[in-house]
Amino acid sequence: MMHENIRINGDRLCTRLDRLAQIGRIDGDGVCRLALSAEDKQGRELVVRWMHDLGLSVKIDAIGNVIGVRAGREDGPPVMTGSHIDTVRTGGRYDGALGVLAGLEVIATLNDAEISTKRPVAVAFFTNEEGSRFQPDMFGSLVYTGALALDEALATRSIDGPTAGDELRRIGYAGREPVGKPYAHVYVELHVEQGPVLDAEGFRVGVVEGVQGISWSEFTLIGQSNHAGTTPMRMRKDAGHVASEIAVFARKLAKELSGHQVATVGVITLAPNLINVVPNRAVITVDLRNTDELRLQEAERRLFTFANDTATAEGVDLTRRTLARFLPVAFAPPLVNRVEAIAENLGLSTKRLPSGAGHDAQIMAAVCPACMIFVPSVGGISHNVNEYTAPADLAAGANVLLRLMLELAE
Amino acid sequence: MMHENIRINGDRLCTRLDRLAQIGRIDGDGVCRLALSAEDKQGRELVVRWMHDLGLSVKIDAIGNVIGVRAGREDGPPVMTGSHIDTVRTGGRYDGALGVLAGLEVIATLNDAEISTKRPVAVAFFTNEEGSRFQPDMFGSLVYTGALALDEALATRSIDGPTAGDELRRIGYAGREPVGKPYAHVYVELHVEQGPVLDAEGFRVGVVEGVQGISWSEFTLIGQSNHAGTTPMRMRKDAGHVASEIAVFARKLAKELSGHQVATVGVITLAPNLINVVPNRAVITVDLRNTDELRLQEAERRLFTFANDTATAEGVDLTRRTLARFLPVAFAPPLVNRVEAIAENLGLSTKRLPSGAGHDAQIMAAVCPACMIFVPSVGGISHNVNEYTAPADLAAGANVLLRLMLELAE
Repeated sequence: MMHENIRINGDRLCTRLDRLAQIGRIDGDGVCRLALSAEDKQGRELVVRWMHDLGLSVKIDAIGNVIGVRAGREDGPPVMTGSHIDTVRTGGRYDGALGVLAGLEVIATLNDAEISTKRPVAVAFFTNEEGSRFQPDMFGSLVYTGALALDEALATRSIDGPTAGDELRRIGYAGREPVGKPYAHVYVELHVEQGPVLDAEGFRVGVVEGVQGISWSEFTLIGQSNHAGTTPMRMRKDAGHVASEIAVFARKLAKELSGHQVATVGVITLAPNLINVVPNRAVITVDLRNTDELRLQEAERRLFTFANDTATAEGVDLTRRTLARFLPVAFAPPLVNRVEAIAENLGLSTKRLPSGAGHDAQIMAAVCPACMIFVPSVGGISHNVNEYTAPADLAAGANVLLRLMLELAE
Repeated sequence: MMHENIRINGDRLCTRLDRLAQIGRIDGDGVCRLALSAEDKQGRELVVRWMHDLGLSVKIDAIGNVIGVRAGREDGPPVMTGSHIDTVRTGGRYDGALGVLAGLEVIATLNDAEISTKRPVAVAFFTNEEGSRFQPDMFGSLVYTGALALDEALATRSIDGPTAGDELRRIGYAGREPVGKPYAHVYVELHVEQGPVLDAEGFRVGVVEGVQGISWSEFTLIGQSNHAGTTPMRMRKDAGHVASEIAVFARKLAKELSGHQVATVGVITLAPNLINVVPNRAVITVDLRNTDELRLQEAERRLFTFANDTATAEGVDLTRRTLARFLPVAFAPPLVNRVEAIAENLGLSTKRLPSGAGHDAQIMAAVCPACMIFVPSVGGISHNVNEYTAPADLAAGANVLLRLMLELAE
């Protein structure tokens, strides 16, 4: 392999992370840089200045995605990396920013070593990955890949009023590059895990096999409110009881089904919610996720059957709404294998795992081979000012990214 | 038996029920006559006028309990019946009123037939049975029996400001009879079931064996909020999951334990109560009731053990508070047997059952032999404007009361 001893500069990466984290900084050393806000504009300007300083050709499309391209010895679609620089309202300093700034660090390292690549390489940041100010989340990459119409995204209204189109013009990021250009040869994204697995189990690098499919259901149960003392058990139509049975069954499902099945009951709301009244109404949500679509469908089927049977047995009416449904995404196996091999070659312990959160890489996977590299999130804490990844892990992830991009660009 | 063919006048009973129901009448033909309110004053004045019209000697004590006594051939403690005339905010027309006005109907029947009894007979209505305006509920009978100090009851503040003492003076019911006088020889109370059993199973008269003991627990569970996608099941500390397991176990307990065990989970509150976040906090209440104190203790023991074990296994902190605890009350078996025999003698089908709601009779049981007679509540509906008992059932219950009082007064 060429350039076997080349490494990124971890201090330079951390310095850039620190500087970007000052923009939108909030109490507790967190960040609030909502998509297309004044803070996002400032953040964009800083990153674009760095791109120019690194000699990249900066392309901005109509939805505000920014792609900095370093020419190769040949023309053609670049080996692309990137992520996002918008945050949630009480975000950390690594989520998104790491993927973008590690990309710049890769470029800086190539520049310093005067390495040319056959293919161009590029660093992108996509608009509104978080979805905290505009829905849907990830609309920048969705528009880039053609999964969402540009007009529709531009017309999206923010939680505070103006449309995305208004805000792009206001902050000067309604660009002229045609959406979806430049094409990507492959897309690689470095990100913090946002979960506890790598940290708890002591692995340095997460080899991300894919992104879990998501199924969100809301069950509304209507029974009959009754006196807790005078109503024998056999005469009850207890909506809350059916909700509790569904919740316990969801946990059982997650234990029984393989394929990284998880099940979460985040919402249970009872009415009248009084100690001595049998609830006549309950609302419960179940969030099912699996990397395997067939297993996810099996989980849904079993959950819905159980819920219906339990409601019927109790004499309770059940209605179900699907609140969200996304297919799982499998990353390109050859890329996934290369991430693993490179990390191990660098002496870094690895664990294969799915991503439980959504990322631009899963959207990009529809138009080019894609993969992700995870580094540990201490305590699994994310979307929180206390998000933290150790500098050595940031550098390790960036080194895996560097080697992978070098390989792919030759 | 003397006077075997004597019967109460059902029409006269219904006419009195209708007239009292006009006072505090609300939409839907229900009643709002909160304790010691202007409506309660009006209701009291009507019932006291009827007592005087029937020739009763009316005694009012310092907590506003009213007892109308019909002299016997001998002096001594009267055979007492009664109930209450206060209602909940959206009450029905039978709860409480039936027991008082059926008592007056018994007196009227004795007067018409010119029957004298050896012992005096009396009709009482106790202050604030419902507890909707003053806490605790049943404080009139509690003071009568000495279970609550008069001063404490008088100092009780209503939900709208003034104390019970203020209100008694305002409506003119701070009486001069010493509390606890006259003593009762026995206490018998006719009441609507307030539950669905008699109506659903087609029985005319409920033979009440006792009042369920009550155990109210509140569990507060503190876990850790986590991302529904990125947190593997084995790493969760899901407070909501522990709550659901407790709820399902409570139902299981009620099935497994005998002795009329009921278990109700009326409250489940999760935080942050978001679809894709593992709940870090849950509050759940469990209402356990049993007529058998040893079985109720067993239910508590099993529930608390299960809750602790489940919380520990999930890594969730659990704290438990007892919100209420009342011992079961067993009515005097000879009286219970007589209710059953008299009803069957009158050709009325009977079912033995516990009372799931609280009644003045359970307080009176501490100072004299006591029992209750239930008549069906259509659909089990109670504390609701749609509360209903058929006139034939009202009359049937009053005839059982008449015969029982006649027996006991000889």
